[in-house]
Amino acid sequence: MNKWVYSFGAGHNEGKAEMRNLLGGKGANLAEMASIGLPVPPGFTITTEVCTAYYDNGKKYPQELKDQVAAALGLVEQAVGMRFGDEKKPLLVSVRSGARVSMPGMMDTVLNLGLNDATVAGLAAASGDPRFAWDSYRRFIQMFGSVVLGVDHHRFEEIIEHVKLDRDVHEDTDLKAEDWQTVVTGYKDMVAQVIGKPFPQDPEEQLWAAIGAVFGSWMNARANTYRRLHDIPASWGTAVNVQAMVFGNMGQDCATGVCFTRDPSTGENIFYGEYLINAQGEDVVAGIRTPQPMAQLKAKPHERSMEVAMPKAYQELVAVRARLEQHYADMQDIEFTVQQNKLYMLQTRNGKRTAAASLKIAVDMAREGLIDQTEAIKRVNPSALDQLLHPTLDPKAPRKLLGKGLPASPGAACGAVVFSSDEAEARAAKGESVILVRIETSPEDIHGMHAASGILTTRGGMTSHAAVVARGMGRPCVAGAGGVTVDYAAQALMSGGQVVQGGEIITLDGATGEIFIGSVAMVEPQLSGDFATLMEWADGVRRLKVRANAETPLDADTARKFGAEGIGLCRTEHMFFDPARIGVVRQMIMTDSEGGRREALARLLPFQRADFIELFRIMAGLPVTIRLLDPPLHEFLPHSEEEIGELATAMGSDLVTMQRRAADLAEANPMLGHRGCRLGISYPEIYEMQARAIFEAAVATAKETGAAPVPEIMIPLVATKKELEITRAQVDKVAKEVFAESGVTIEYYVGTMIELPRAALTADKIAEVADFFSFGTNDLTQTTFGLSRDDAGKFLPVYVEKGILPKDPFVSIDIEGVGALVKIAKEKGRSVKSDLKLGICGEHGGDPASIAFCEEAGLDYVSCSPYRVPVARLAAAQAALSSGGGDRTA
Amino acid sequence: MNKWVYSFGAGHNEGKAEMRNLLGGKGANLAEMASIGLPVPPGFTITTEVCTAYYDNGKKYPQELKDQVAAALGLVEQAVGMRFGDEKKPLLVSVRSGARVSMPGMMDTVLNLGLNDATVAGLAAASGDPRFAWDSYRRFIQMFGSVVLGVDHHRFEEIIEHVKLDRDVHEDTDLKAEDWQTVVTGYKDMVAQVIGKPFPQDPEEQLWAAIGAVFGSWMNARANTYRRLHDIPASWGTAVNVQAMVFGNMGQDCATGVCFTRDPSTGENIFYGEYLINAQGEDVVAGIRTPQPMAQLKAKPHERSMEVAMPKAYQELVAVRARLEQHYADMQDIEFTVQQNKLYMLQTRNGKRTAAASLKIAVDMAREGLIDQTEAIKRVNPSALDQLLHPTLDPKAPRKLLGKGLPASPGAACGAVVFSSDEAEARAAKGESVILVRIETSPEDIHGMHAASGILTTRGGMTSHAAVVARGMGRPCVAGAGGVTVDYAAQALMSGGQVVQGGEIITLDGATGEIFIGSVAMVEPQLSGDFATLMEWADGVRRLKVRANAETPLDADTARKFGAEGIGLCRTEHMFFDPARIGVVRQMIMTDSEGGRREALARLLPFQRADFIELFRIMAGLPVTIRLLDPPLHEFLPHSEEEIGELATAMGSDLVTMQRRAADLAEANPMLGHRGCRLGISYPEIYEMQARAIFEAAVATAKETGAAPVPEIMIPLVATKKELEITRAQVDKVAKEVFAESGVTIEYYVGTMIELPRAALTADKIAEVADFFSFGTNDLTQTTFGLSRDDAGKFLPVYVEKGILPKDPFVSIDIEGVGALVKIAKEKGRSVKSDLKLGICGEHGGDPASIAFCEEAGLDYVSCSPYRVPVARLAAAQAALSSGGGDRTA
Repeated sequence: MNKWVYSFGAGHNEGKAEMRNLLGGKGANLAEMASIGLPVPPGFTITTEVCTAYYDNGKKYPQELKDQVAAALGLVEQAVGMRFGDEKKPLLVSVRSGARVSMPGMMDTVLNLGLNDATVAGLAAASGDPRFAWDSYRRFIQMFGSVVLGVDHHRFEEIIEHVKLDRDVHEDTDLKAEDWQTVVTGYKDMVAQVIGKPFPQDPEEQLWAAIGAVFGSWMNARANTYRRLHDIPASWGTAVNVQAMVFGNMGQDCATGVCFTRDPSTGENIFYGEYLINAQGEDVVAGIRTPQPMAQLKAKPHERSMEVAMPKAYQELVAVRARLEQHYADMQDIEFTVQQNKLYMLQTRNGKRTAAASLKIAVDMAREGLIDQTEAIKRVNPSALDQLLHPTLDPKAPRKLLGKGLPASPGAACGAVVFSSDEAEARAAKGESVILVRIETSPEDIHGMHAASGILTTRGGMTSHAAVVARGMGRPCVAGAGGVTVDYAAQALMSGGQVVQGGEIITLDGATGEIFIGSVAMVEPQLSGDFATLMEWADGVRRLKVRANAETPLDADTARKFGAEGIGLCRTEHMFFDPARIGVVRQMIMTDSEGGRREALARLLPFQRADFIELFRIMAGLPVTIRLLDPPLHEFLPHSEEEIGELATAMGSDLVTMQRRAADLAEANPMLGHRGCRLGISYPEIYEMQARAIFEAAVATAKETGAAPVPEIMIPLVATKKELEITRAQVDKVAKEVFAESGVTIEYYVGTMIELPRAALTADKIAEVADFFSFGTNDLTQTTFGLSRDDAGKFLPVYVEKGILPKDPFVSIDIEGVGALVKIAKEKGRSVKSDLKLGICGEHGGDPASIAFCEEAGLDYVSCSPYRVPVARLAAAQAALSSGGGDRTA
Repeated sequence: MNKWVYSFGAGHNEGKAEMRNLLGGKGANLAEMASIGLPVPPGFTITTEVCTAYYDNGKKYPQELKDQVAAALGLVEQAVGMRFGDEKKPLLVSVRSGARVSMPGMMDTVLNLGLNDATVAGLAAASGDPRFAWDSYRRFIQMFGSVVLGVDHHRFEEIIEHVKLDRDVHEDTDLKAEDWQTVVTGYKDMVAQVIGKPFPQDPEEQLWAAIGAVFGSWMNARANTYRRLHDIPASWGTAVNVQAMVFGNMGQDCATGVCFTRDPSTGENIFYGEYLINAQGEDVVAGIRTPQPMAQLKAKPHERSMEVAMPKAYQELVAVRARLEQHYADMQDIEFTVQQNKLYMLQTRNGKRTAAASLKIAVDMAREGLIDQTEAIKRVNPSALDQLLHPTLDPKAPRKLLGKGLPASPGAACGAVVFSSDEAEARAAKGESVILVRIETSPEDIHGMHAASGILTTRGGMTSHAAVVARGMGRPCVAGAGGVTVDYAAQALMSGGQVVQGGEIITLDGATGEIFIGSVAMVEPQLSGDFATLMEWADGVRRLKVRANAETPLDADTARKFGAEGIGLCRTEHMFFDPARIGVVRQMIMTDSEGGRREALARLLPFQRADFIELFRIMAGLPVTIRLLDPPLHEFLPHSEEEIGELATAMGSDLVTMQRRAADLAEANPMLGHRGCRLGISYPEIYEMQARAIFEAAVATAKETGAAPVPEIMIPLVATKKELEITRAQVDKVAKEVFAESGVTIEYYVGTMIELPRAALTADKIAEVADFFSFGTNDLTQTTFGLSRDDAGKFLPVYVEKGILPKDPFVSIDIEGVGALVKIAKEKGRSVKSDLKLGICGEHGGDPASIAFCEEAGLDYVSCSPYRVPVARLAAAQAALSSGGGDRTA
């Protein structure tokens, strides 16, 4: 017989933390906490296997489930001495979902389940508090009604508002037992009208409906979106936890709270969280009442900390905090309830945190001896580092304050105001930076939050939906900006008499909670000592070298500051677009004689030489890989008739001739056209000029600094050995000439991009004339898939959504196809030259999953954008650790 | 010491036929003929290794060469009893090039070398014929002057014309010894003036200059072009043959001739050729005098055959002909000279022939027992068959005769008149069919002849340059149309008062020599019994099946007639372009709702079903592979504003909406865009309609004929297993529906094109859901090389010319790169499904070299255009033979 149900608490702990896959995170940790002696109300977990079986069998439960649930419920009744559905002393339960990983978007919780018109009286009698009993009943109907029965939550709020108007009161707390009774009657009538039958009174029926709702929510649209964004397979399923209720809302000696064992924003080692006296769980996160701080240290004058209000329960909690961190060796996110001064633990899990906190906690914990350095390296998600490295507001920049809210997620963001998640997604897809502004966010907003550069809400606290999700995503967020009014209908934002229309620019500072009108200048991130420490530890274990893709002095500077060990890709064509040069470039292209081209190129030479001198100076002897001209010539041409006319005038030609030449250059498939080394072969004078600029710059730098750079000249789009042979000969010839002219000889290498399948397949031949290979995985992905990045937008998102492709192959390397070519090229190349240097310079060079592949494939280095360099250093270290390496000699 | 020189004739035969690589074809065969006792004037061959060493060593000869030449020359002097440079009885020699294969474009021949102002007197005395001596001397100066010294041949002709005017005579034959002496004086003065020094008098100097000119001509532009067109490596080099002169121009008992042992046009087993009495070699091919036939049987009333004019020499030659065919077991092309009634053999080689002749000779020789069937199969070049299969003029078609010439190369051609080879090439490159019209052709015209559909000359005989080269190339040719006048300056062609301007259309019938104004209807080729016989022999040894690419009933009919064993590629989109349907197709595309698309598709369904019923009927149970829609939708849209407007009206929409939708569909790189199965996934209703049309047609055909077709449904552009899984499920679902509706179940297969590198690399995965693979090597070549066929025109020809690519990879499969992917896919696919059916359906399916690759790679079939089917059958047989197979069980 399959075991579908696991009990926990009250001496029956059948689960443990390691059983997360079976019991979900919440269930596994409830069992774990109970088994290490923490106060957990008894309950049981219906396993994730039930969920999987449910969907595999046409939404039917396994046969044995009913009996196993009944038996487990019996154990709970026994432990608490109350019976489910008992009219005198009813056992109430909570029903909560609990997947392997926490997932907003799914049905979360139904509390007080078991109440009906009969048991509510029993609860009133047993608690001696009819108001509590009727309030609990209306809460139950409201939660069950909205999440299980699908009744719009506004319908419930309307009824409360109506009763408040009737009684002429303003706060929920002013409503008495009889008022809540009236509310309950109104709720039941309304629900019956909406669902066409009475609100279910049978506790058994209530329980199975709630369980069914949890499983049903696993496949709803929001959950599917979340899973897609976080690479969670649908096959994992969710568990359901059924647990005896404890009450934080039975009076002033009751409370409920949510807290973190360390500050999830900064990582600071202090007890961090919020609680509310006389409240139930959802009151804390709902943002209706303002929660109070845990520690007195963090309390503002008007606030009352739990430390002061409930000293005994607080001290108990502080002990639990220490116990949990020791036990889990990680920062915990916990939920608790105090019922009549007795502490109950309702949840613990590894806490979500900002990148900064993640970094600080990992380094601190390693120093505290909770974990070792290797573990610290593994703990930090490399992608999350990215947010530490982006600019913050320049303190000296002028700014115009609009308002202020809670500093809910750090970082600064600037963008156009949008008021809906759909608009955020649509405009972001066009490359616009947007700030999503909402009164509050809900799981329906996940896609908009993901698309936005920053998030602003006018309601909710530091643990509100907006705050938690934004931190997890690394989006700057200002939450609960109460002084700001949002008018969705008018598409406007108002604060202190100032109005911002949708589409206008605002700037958020997630570190201070400030909101500014317009855009505010930003400055480079200030990296903490912890960052340097972790990077140092990571450098100690990684094998892959990390270089940067950089053309400008600014990029090169940034790259070095972030620890780049060279330039892996300098795209020389970017240097052609400078306004001072583009005219000459265009003349070069529009000329139809070699002589004319040579003349224009001679004018470009000093520019290119100066570019390279500056790069060589900055990189101070580190390797610099320079790719010769790659894009098709028509990319440099003007498009408007006016500009073409100007060019014609400058060249002493006429519009028609110029247009004809431009038309000659147009291509049906530019990606597969006359570009890369094909240009170098058709117009040798272009590569000759570029080679001359490189060698003259290298010689000049050597003379100036005494430290000669080692240029690595890279020929793009090679498909055959002969192409590299011909272009390499051009480069070698120019080198000889420059060395003879200057009397200085420089060490240099000539290699090629491997960015066409044919190059990978014939890498043994090509390696005979190459000093190095650099995998251009952007183009290699395009040709391997037969997929133009420019055109894929029409179907690639659907492909990822339908699971035809696990991920966008332009973001994370396609290991099966593109990766196979990389491995073939590596094996063939090294079979001819065992020391052939191998790198990757596509955008995959900064993607952790792709870096793990590069480690496994045995490449020598990755090259990525300057801001991704620390990401790559950490990812490379993690890759080395998980491939069994772990020191530089591996 | 290296041996650089090989003697032949007069008892010193150091070479033989097998030494063709070392001695060149001419030298090897001279030695061979001499060694089997045929009358060959003595001489020696300077090897091809000398040529290679010459170019490898900066155009310097090997040291020992001078002495070896002197020694060999000494042997010749001894054999003929004359001395080179002797003023009394001078030995004269010919110097001829001789590569492994005959190569027009190179320096061919210098005759009478050794003559100077002193030896000419000796020759006059020794021959007793001063006119002969001076004529020989002027011929020598003319040949040496033009081919060795580079003097324009018009300069020589002017001098002769001048002397003729002076003497008031019209024919060369009317000039006397003194006149020729005057010509010689004029020649020498003119040459001295052109080259800036006197015409060389030293025979040694003459000899080495001629040898140098042969080696120099190996690398001239024309030779390079020819080598490129015929895949001859430059490294082969040429040999030089130096041979004692014999004279066909010493009087009426002298003659020279060129002949074939069988008719090179038809293959008929008769002695075929031309000769001239009292002439030297170049007179026969130059077209100045009209040569006479060899056999009396072929002589017209006014002609005098050699059989009648020189019966003894003729009978000797007939014996030689039999001896040579027996010895070489192939048709020979021979040159001879009769000097004072004595026969000398100057050359023998395998004769070039038309495809028809090639076929007939191979089959006849196998029947005669000269060769066996296997050898007969190997003898016929599959590519040449092509010309047998193309239409000839429809005998019943109306026509307007312009003129008549010699039927120099069979086949009919129709095209625009062009008067220069450059224009022929330029217009052909744009896809135009052109007829190259020249007074006579020369090696400079090779590229134009290659580009032209047909060739017309007004001068020269059946063995003129135009005739020989056109036959080799398989181009229809009418030569020597004396009644037609060409006016290059006026760009016009005149005959019998009719004028045809350049650019106007004419039609040639190469089988009759007729020239028609305008285009004349053509009919299907009539295939000889020999063709059927050879195909039958080929079918007996080939392993590869041969299918055809066909969509229309006409194509399918043609394919079956040519022996196709099924359809390997039916491109359904071709069926969409029919005028009756394109409107509906466009409405389908322009609709932005699925409902609208389904409505339009429902209207297309009956058309597609009818198409398939017809194909299935014709193919009568043979496999038919049908590819579902492949090209991007925008390919079906109209381009002009007017047409878009009409479409808008038809759809009740407006121009702007339609233009916007068209713009939405436009792509940056359509080749890599939204096409193939990506469309089938985005718009499942399209593939559903096509699948329904196929299955309904199959059911209807089964009911009608009792023989159910076996459709093989092919999904294009698959990159991942999942794509095939999804689209296959669509097809299977439709199949079930149709089978249920009709009560008839049909066997069918679903497979995929392998046309993306990723598909090849993950073929093991894809094979799990595929019944067959068909390699779409057109697209696979584009993606493997990153090369758009539409854009490659800008650089691909240069690539082939520079040897970066050995051949156009769209014509002959790139074995190294694309072939590697084919092999990977085959191995991976068969590792999962050992009986996976594999075919190729790119244009490579009709290319013999690619077919040889398919044989080696172990594919099951090739599919090609209907007219290439016989080519493929023969090529497949040859491939089976050379891979060591040779029967169906191999």
